[in-house]
Amino acid sequence: MTSVTNARVVFNEIPSAYPEPGRTTVYDKSATICLDEVTLNGGVLVKTLFLSVDPFLRGMMRDPDIELYSPAFEIGKPIYGYGVARVLRSEIAGIEVGLYVEGILSFQQYSVLPNLAAFHIIDEKHKVPLSYYLGVLGMPGKTAYMAWKEFSRAKAGETAFVTTGAGPVGSFVIQLAKLAGMKVIASAGSDEKVAFMKSLGADVAFNYKTMDTLEVLQKEGPIDVYWDHVGGKYLDAALGTARVGGRFIECGMITQYNDAGAQTLKNLINIVTMSLSLHGFIVFRDLEHKYNEEFYSLVPELVSSGKIQYREQVYDGLETVGEVLMAVQKGINEAKAVIRVAADV
Amino acid sequence: MTSVTNARVVFNEIPSAYPEPGRTTVYDKSATICLDEVTLNGGVLVKTLFLSVDPFLRGMMRDPDIELYSPAFEIGKPIYGYGVARVLRSEIAGIEVGLYVEGILSFQQYSVLPNLAAFHIIDEKHKVPLSYYLGVLGMPGKTAYMAWKEFSRAKAGETAFVTTGAGPVGSFVIQLAKLAGMKVIASAGSDEKVAFMKSLGADVAFNYKTMDTLEVLQKEGPIDVYWDHVGGKYLDAALGTARVGGRFIECGMITQYNDAGAQTLKNLINIVTMSLSLHGFIVFRDLEHKYNEEFYSLVPELVSSGKIQYREQVYDGLETVGEVLMAVQKGINEAKAVIRVAADV
Repeated sequence: MTSVTNARVVFNEIPSAYPEPGRTTVYDKSATICLDEVTLNGGVLVKTLFLSVDPFLRGMMRDPDIELYSPAFEIGKPIYGYGVARVLRSEIAGIEVGLYVEGILSFQQYSVLPNLAAFHIIDEKHKVPLSYYLGVLGMPGKTAYMAWKEFSRAKAGETAFVTTGAGPVGSFVIQLAKLAGMKVIASAGSDEKVAFMKSLGADVAFNYKTMDTLEVLQKEGPIDVYWDHVGGKYLDAALGTARVGGRFIECGMITQYNDAGAQTLKNLINIVTMSLSLHGFIVFRDLEHKYNEEFYSLVPELVSSGKIQYREQVYDGLETVGEVLMAVQKGINEAKAVIRVAADV
Repeated sequence: MTSVTNARVVFNEIPSAYPEPGRTTVYDKSATICLDEVTLNGGVLVKTLFLSVDPFLRGMMRDPDIELYSPAFEIGKPIYGYGVARVLRSEIAGIEVGLYVEGILSFQQYSVLPNLAAFHIIDEKHKVPLSYYLGVLGMPGKTAYMAWKEFSRAKAGETAFVTTGAGPVGSFVIQLAKLAGMKVIASAGSDEKVAFMKSLGADVAFNYKTMDTLEVLQKEGPIDVYWDHVGGKYLDAALGTARVGGRFIECGMITQYNDAGAQTLKNLINIVTMSLSLHGFIVFRDLEHKYNEEFYSLVPELVSSGKIQYREQVYDGLETVGEVLMAVQKGINEAKAVIRVAADV
């Protein structure tokens, strides 16, 4: 009956631009929890092992009066997102102590969950690192795999352009496009990321900070499939260099998340003249129900066998979350950002 | 063996903004043709009865070095577009003198055509005015019918917003949306056009010059299907008031045809967050092969029976073409613009 600290990351203030460590979120060690005796009310007690810092968390740091596909974080409460946890105690039939689960968790060390209906029970037979269930085997991997299946209509010999190609979604998309027999152009923001994209098979990989995207596409295009993570002038460059019938998979527009300003585009008219289609989606709302079974039956094996490559960047401790939130928005992390909350997996 | 005048409208100069009568195009009466003796080389001689002045002609008045879905007009030669003609002489088996045909014609009184492979032979049993084959039974009608079938995924109870709703495409789309059981919001640029759209069944019809499109949509939306003819701030307003899963049918962006400037939009991010899809198309390239048979088997009867309403604005004489080209770009014509080239149909 000893209480232990239940450290957490609390939402403190709505940011106007990039989230600031210590201001937008605060690391707080004041809460405690009694692991043996906390009431479960028919649920489970879990210990958080890994938490995922994803770009979409920025959209939840907003005025709750603004409607969006995701809820808004509450000031004074922990932020939450995808995580992997281990079951410490269970009052749910069939859920054994020691199971690993993946789903939405508060950014704190321990949580009592009323049920695990929205969680994925990790099958350890695939022998992949648990944190991969926050990346290539989690929401980012589903985003890449499911939207590619749904919208790409990929044909061998065509050309794809993938932005944020070193991230957990883009790096999977590059590999899916290569498996489909396409020429792949990929961009990212550092030379190290460029080297990684080349190692994945990208035919043309470039650093968008040192090379002009439009010039690269004019030389290497036209493009048939555009995987958008960035919007703005990159979207405009893709519109301007698309082939007739091109498919634009609108996964994100990070240039717009931290900037309320409008986007100025020259080539929107090409949507009409080049018969382009643009497809927006939110994976858990639009695609997960359709592809979840296929995903878990195919992708873990592709990853464990090395047919699909993956990398991540692990940060140690909940106290790093504020910095990592900002790094992910600015794109200065080198790979999928994961927080290791506890080492004793 | 008497020669007659073969008056024509010649492309004279590439316009930088709106086409100017007498400068962009010139009405020219210098050419003659000998109707009895002109050599057909196995083709036909036709007399032009009606010519269609469509918005897309503007895109052909360009530097031929700029690639687009349509060819560029040649300086010094007649412009061309959709027209209806009567066969005066024929050397083609099965093509009788007196037949009416619809297809691409030079803007001149008489033409020798090598074949009629790309022409539609008008079936007179439907007893609709010949000029309708340039409107509701021609390219604009196909544009409305085929793209609606292909992209709208219309459901009863949903809401559609149709721009340029008094034009030949938009007025058809309004009626298709009503037939599908939708609430229809429609915009046009004069109060007379607003009254026409209401007569077609539009639930909300408004003049975009005197009312704010965004305000109307905020009050009457959210919208599930957007039929775009205009682009720019109207597209932005539709993006800002779309329901999750909205379909945008990108038929045109006339705000961009006469203005090389860029478009500034605030709500492109909604493509992602609201899971919108945008579908560009060029009807003759993308849809006609799929839907042509269905179109001609269903739509003439819908029109002759009055189930689909249609109206047009007929201008008399080739000499009016320059003015009408400008009027169509500025949207100051009151209905589908057709030139009556000859009265003796």
